[in-house]
Amino acid sequence: NIKDIPEPVDHVISCVPASAALQLIKDCATKGVKAVQFFTSGFSEAGTEEGKQLESELCLLAHQVGIRIIGPNSYGVYCPKGSLSFVDDFAKESGSVALICQSGGNATYIVREVAKRGVRFSKAVSYGNAADIDEGNLLEYLATDPDTEIIIAYIEGVKNGKRFSQILKETARIKPVIVLKSGISETGARTAASHTGSLSGSNKVWNGFLRQVGAIRVYSLEELIDMAVTFSYLPPLSGNRVGILGMGGANSVLAADDCTNAGLIVPRFSEIIREKIKNLIGTEAGTILGNPIDLSAEAFEAGYYNILDILANYEGIDLSIVHFPIGPFPFPPSQNKMIWDFLLEDVIKAHKELVKPLIVVIHIPSRSEDYEWMLEAQRKCSKAGIATYHSISSAAKAMARFLHYQERKTMSENQS
Amino acid sequence: NIKDIPEPVDHVISCVPASAALQLIKDCATKGVKAVQFFTSGFSEAGTEEGKQLESELCLLAHQVGIRIIGPNSYGVYCPKGSLSFVDDFAKESGSVALICQSGGNATYIVREVAKRGVRFSKAVSYGNAADIDEGNLLEYLATDPDTEIIIAYIEGVKNGKRFSQILKETARIKPVIVLKSGISETGARTAASHTGSLSGSNKVWNGFLRQVGAIRVYSLEELIDMAVTFSYLPPLSGNRVGILGMGGANSVLAADDCTNAGLIVPRFSEIIREKIKNLIGTEAGTILGNPIDLSAEAFEAGYYNILDILANYEGIDLSIVHFPIGPFPFPPSQNKMIWDFLLEDVIKAHKELVKPLIVVIHIPSRSEDYEWMLEAQRKCSKAGIATYHSISSAAKAMARFLHYQERKTMSENQS
Repeated sequence: NIKDIPEPVDHVISCVPASAALQLIKDCATKGVKAVQFFTSGFSEAGTEEGKQLESELCLLAHQVGIRIIGPNSYGVYCPKGSLSFVDDFAKESGSVALICQSGGNATYIVREVAKRGVRFSKAVSYGNAADIDEGNLLEYLATDPDTEIIIAYIEGVKNGKRFSQILKETARIKPVIVLKSGISETGARTAASHTGSLSGSNKVWNGFLRQVGAIRVYSLEELIDMAVTFSYLPPLSGNRVGILGMGGANSVLAADDCTNAGLIVPRFSEIIREKIKNLIGTEAGTILGNPIDLSAEAFEAGYYNILDILANYEGIDLSIVHFPIGPFPFPPSQNKMIWDFLLEDVIKAHKELVKPLIVVIHIPSRSEDYEWMLEAQRKCSKAGIATYHSISSAAKAMARFLHYQERKTMSENQS
Repeated sequence: NIKDIPEPVDHVISCVPASAALQLIKDCATKGVKAVQFFTSGFSEAGTEEGKQLESELCLLAHQVGIRIIGPNSYGVYCPKGSLSFVDDFAKESGSVALICQSGGNATYIVREVAKRGVRFSKAVSYGNAADIDEGNLLEYLATDPDTEIIIAYIEGVKNGKRFSQILKETARIKPVIVLKSGISETGARTAASHTGSLSGSNKVWNGFLRQVGAIRVYSLEELIDMAVTFSYLPPLSGNRVGILGMGGANSVLAADDCTNAGLIVPRFSEIIREKIKNLIGTEAGTILGNPIDLSAEAFEAGYYNILDILANYEGIDLSIVHFPIGPFPFPPSQNKMIWDFLLEDVIKAHKELVKPLIVVIHIPSRSEDYEWMLEAQRKCSKAGIATYHSISSAAKAMARFLHYQERKTMSENQS
């Protein structure tokens, strides 16, 4: 029993069965506990009258004795600064991204994937049924939390739409808030009701609402993760014109399509720039120099640094996108890694020394022997402060959303 | 020199410089060679008058001496039946999918990724500039090739639009043809011109054209690969109603959204079915039974086989989708693998013994230690004849396209 612990207890993590939840709150009150997070499920999300009733009683009791509840049906709090975590492999260092997430499984996935790309968290809260502390409370707290600069959220439904809307509007004015709203289909909404007892609301309403309050809407976990990465690494961009550097002709064609579809501009380089690049590599055969640049095997001759140097000094673009080959070269894995490392070092050097922002695309590899290289390359990039993405299309989408946020912010600042 | 080879030579793979190409054709003519594939670049794709001129001369000469050319600026032919390949790790066994691909790099990527999911090729041709043998010739050949049942294509532009359109129409009547058309943006088109000397045509024209001729259009390499997998494994479906089985509440919500967005129906199970499942698992806490089914930890109690058996006997759905967790459980990797294997075996058994079609979603793992498991699981599934996908949204899109093709085919058969 909690009362048997001799030391004081501030925060309780509980997985007692639902039927023991009320007694636990009583015991915690005796002990002077301030907050209880319930992993326990079997409350409103079960869809039964008993479940709903029990959840109400739990909240009422907690309110009476002055205890705040996270959950039930939640993983609770990850706060590296306070050495609190719900998964033991989460990073121990703090960062500036906060996550509020109705789902524990998704919170785990998001924290891990974002961390793999070098970004760290101030707090991540899986808040489940939101019976007491809800998305509004969390957002309100994070809005003024000095450790938090970027807020990402996975939301199935909100309890108090009007209050949430106000808080979100105020928060989005101060910090970027990126929202993945699920349960947007009828079936999804029905499932969300079973998952966290949420009322989801229609897709159309959410779309208008999120736009109005200035939040950034995304449509998948990958997009949510990409935005945490983007806001963590990128400085404000001077515009939406990108220079693309990589290997592979078809991937250059697809890269141009993907960037254009996302709303970026891939301007044809001026003759002077084309000549400069041509002089560097000594040939045009098998290459594409117009933007995207596909250097093919000539990349080793020219060096990525030198090309990126030309792009950094070219006023026609605002951002460089470097993409690594979609598959390995026809060499043994160790040689492949040597070549990739050679190119990567050049990119990192360019990022350190040149003024123009750049991002890197490293595709998820086909072969398991290349998987470790990808992780290592991601680590090297994040250590150097470079944002990495898994595809050109996802990078392009993230850039477009980032620019859109920037424009809105500038507009509203000019208005006020 | 080719003439120094004592034995007869049918097919030549060449990477001589562009300047030596004409002489090579002359030598090949003396030797009685029937076809030459040119890896060599520096022809029309260079955008210079000399390059275009040289390509014309090459074709004219080859025509005069009765030699057919693949490329130039291409990787050439992969034909496992003829022991011919352009990458040494390609599968040695033959299959029923043919690929025509203007890009060598993409051809390599596609063949490898499709192979990883158990599908084999009859032929794959990277045809580059299509100076002589073009997409029309290849399609015409594959239409009647007895070894080919499914055709997938990556196309940047076509040489003879009218002829290609006729051939594609006739081919699509006999076999499914799936097309990824790139160079659809202005910049993409400009890049395609540099890559393979192609004239791309507008996105709108291609959209209408591909729909009219009955080809299936996709928008990324991943979607192209998914369709090769889908047509290879799936029997005709009786309709678009899916039952979804997996673990993770939020992923079940997102799964419902993704399937609905793709045009599939995720019907709420009847009370009888819900009761049957509830009886199997003995509790409802922490689970979702309505469809999607999220069994949470109760999956081990119930067994996936038993759940899939209930779904197979339920007339309300046409297909079962099983998705594996998006991330590992909070156990050591070896234990994780044991659990996943336990579930996977049940799914494979269900596929063997039950009549309702099923597909499996295995996400690309976060941790490198799980990557091998994913590959092994994909291998086990493909050996058992099960299609695997990397996300619910991509699986749902593939199903919707597959069903759309099926409907069109039935309609046109009824008309004729």
